[in-house]
Amino acid sequence: MAQVQVAVLGYGTVGSGVVKVIDTNHDSILGKSGADLHVKYILDLREFPGDPNEQKVVHDYEVIVNDPEVQIVVETMGGVEPAFTFTKRALEAGKSVCTSNKELVANRGTELLALAKEHQASYMFEASCGGGIPIIRPLRTCLCADVIDEITGILNGTTNYILTKMIDEGLEFDEVLKDAQQKGYAERNPEADVEGYDACRKIAILSSLAYGQRVDYTDVYTEGISKISSADILYAKAMGRTIRLLAFSKKEGSQVTAMVAPHLVGKDDPLYAVNGVFNAIFVHGNMLGDAMFYGQGAGKEATASAVVADVIEEAQTLGKGVMSSWSPEKLPLTDISKTRKRYFVRVKGDAADAAKVADIFGGIETVQAGLAGEYGFLTQEMTEQDYQERAAKVEGILSMIRVREK
Amino acid sequence: MAQVQVAVLGYGTVGSGVVKVIDTNHDSILGKSGADLHVKYILDLREFPGDPNEQKVVHDYEVIVNDPEVQIVVETMGGVEPAFTFTKRALEAGKSVCTSNKELVANRGTELLALAKEHQASYMFEASCGGGIPIIRPLRTCLCADVIDEITGILNGTTNYILTKMIDEGLEFDEVLKDAQQKGYAERNPEADVEGYDACRKIAILSSLAYGQRVDYTDVYTEGISKISSADILYAKAMGRTIRLLAFSKKEGSQVTAMVAPHLVGKDDPLYAVNGVFNAIFVHGNMLGDAMFYGQGAGKEATASAVVADVIEEAQTLGKGVMSSWSPEKLPLTDISKTRKRYFVRVKGDAADAAKVADIFGGIETVQAGLAGEYGFLTQEMTEQDYQERAAKVEGILSMIRVREK
Repeated sequence: MAQVQVAVLGYGTVGSGVVKVIDTNHDSILGKSGADLHVKYILDLREFPGDPNEQKVVHDYEVIVNDPEVQIVVETMGGVEPAFTFTKRALEAGKSVCTSNKELVANRGTELLALAKEHQASYMFEASCGGGIPIIRPLRTCLCADVIDEITGILNGTTNYILTKMIDEGLEFDEVLKDAQQKGYAERNPEADVEGYDACRKIAILSSLAYGQRVDYTDVYTEGISKISSADILYAKAMGRTIRLLAFSKKEGSQVTAMVAPHLVGKDDPLYAVNGVFNAIFVHGNMLGDAMFYGQGAGKEATASAVVADVIEEAQTLGKGVMSSWSPEKLPLTDISKTRKRYFVRVKGDAADAAKVADIFGGIETVQAGLAGEYGFLTQEMTEQDYQERAAKVEGILSMIRVREK
Repeated sequence: MAQVQVAVLGYGTVGSGVVKVIDTNHDSILGKSGADLHVKYILDLREFPGDPNEQKVVHDYEVIVNDPEVQIVVETMGGVEPAFTFTKRALEAGKSVCTSNKELVANRGTELLALAKEHQASYMFEASCGGGIPIIRPLRTCLCADVIDEITGILNGTTNYILTKMIDEGLEFDEVLKDAQQKGYAERNPEADVEGYDACRKIAILSSLAYGQRVDYTDVYTEGISKISSADILYAKAMGRTIRLLAFSKKEGSQVTAMVAPHLVGKDDPLYAVNGVFNAIFVHGNMLGDAMFYGQGAGKEATASAVVADVIEEAQTLGKGVMSSWSPEKLPLTDISKTRKRYFVRVKGDAADAAKVADIFGGIETVQAGLAGEYGFLTQEMTEQDYQERAAKVEGILSMIRVREK
């Protein structure tokens, strides 16, 4: 195979990681895959004096898109624009594109995939979900013989780090968030992570791939972790469970539900032991049964490794494109009010008063965590709507967390 | 894509699973991959009166190998012969072959891969390691940008089931083995599983792929679980650890070591929570960092799902073959006497006598599990040779288990 010329858009954390992986592992990649990768251009507004790749930096995208030698474009700019326009123009010029940009994939992925197909090019985004964890390629290839009916993931490293630290050290959300911001594990504006928006985009992308039809992330019910308290965690521990921010989608018959919300997770669940900045994605197939993929959900080199795996596959399939797409019509999601699960509820008062609550809910399991003036209980399995109607009759509810059953 | 005609050799557990997956998920597979798979023949010595595929059963391999319509052969016979001869002839006829047969891959994989390449066909074996867990394809594609320097797996479901039951119920090895045999989780002749031979073949295959050079399974130091006792497990629990049969290989510089042996595994290790018949494979890449793949290591449909994923990729690459091979010269393994780790040792006597042992080992950590007339200790990190020399000076050693450090 001849040399393959690559252009990298954006020389930030992931972009510089991609250049590093291609440089460091060039010979190993060539030996294993036959792909002889070379970075020809790096697009960035800044100069990088003294950087070994200083000479490759250009400021004008026209140089890249008009150079017929460039066959693969790596978009690691983030955001929707100008990333969308740059990607679109590259694909129209027959160049394949790969990216770590979940925002762009979640918003415009459908049309970019169609455009890639039209021009016998590829649009790939392994690194957009779960950083370095191989999940999109396994869904497309390894699990290709299966009909997928569930994806459940811990898809955001920042929130998992915060929850793990709250659990391990008994701290409150605000304290841990500040610490995470100081350490660079959380952004100064942490909303996208802590309110679940980031996980929501990722589960929409994974669900679109798994079910073969576009899942609109704005349709996914999303709840973050900012209301989780150290008291909630005491109860979780009393039940031998932990709390994780789960993003999931499930298909039953033609009904698909999707949700991002904190859940209680039991010790027997493979998601229980996923701590700190690690991510994990659990998949259920009709033949495969349960499988789980675990790894670093972020991090410069891990994410870059996933991007370069895409570059390699694009290099191996130049002029053909990798078949990977979903149908553009929106997959209608079933309203979450119809989904069934158990709920853990904290309520003001004394466990001795629980008889009234048991009447309302038709049987509960009370839980004590040694906190004065309150108690907790687990409901039986019921729909969200049923839960909401019954909960409206109970006074003094302090918090509710859904239970993941395995 | 035109219809792709498939022949299945052996209509046992996995073979019938493959036919079931192709039948059940035919339309989903076609939609996702473009592969229109049809089973044309099933080779078996037996008749299957009343089976829906009765008409496809043939008893003579010549029918299959001489039929130019058959493009893909699925070998699910097991054993080295006649599987090797059938595979060789199929590849020579330009047909691609995939298999779940780890014995054949471990023994003759190198020459079958070379033969496949020579005839622009593929020889694939995803299901040979870890049943339904996607690992070989991820190693080849997703982790292609990485230099792999460690693979550690729980690669045998039978031994993991036995260990899990011993740990959960405080039973001895022999009792649990009998129970497992009655339930069909262990073979009547359980040696290949419980003495680690099965895991040994699998780690040799995975290591050959990861390091690009043939690892001979007969070179891999292998120890099974038949000597693990309920007393060992009490100490493991006292240390907050569990015992797992691990198969691993590590590359440091140009040195590669490989081993199958029981290990103590700590709570923070992602392998800790892998219970029962589940398997998991942990991989470390120089860029990716830690990743883990988890799922059902056996089971008819899970294994068949992995075989069919190979069939699909072979169908997509007919006439070209999937690039996947390793160099035929044997990779020399470093003698395990030079590898470094910590060791847990049980010894007769009283912990008060431990001072002598501490002198011999240069510092130990004693462990009590409430057992009369014995105690345990953890050594510092040292080579196996160093351990053996020091252990020879200690009287009354009852057992030794290696410690996996994360």
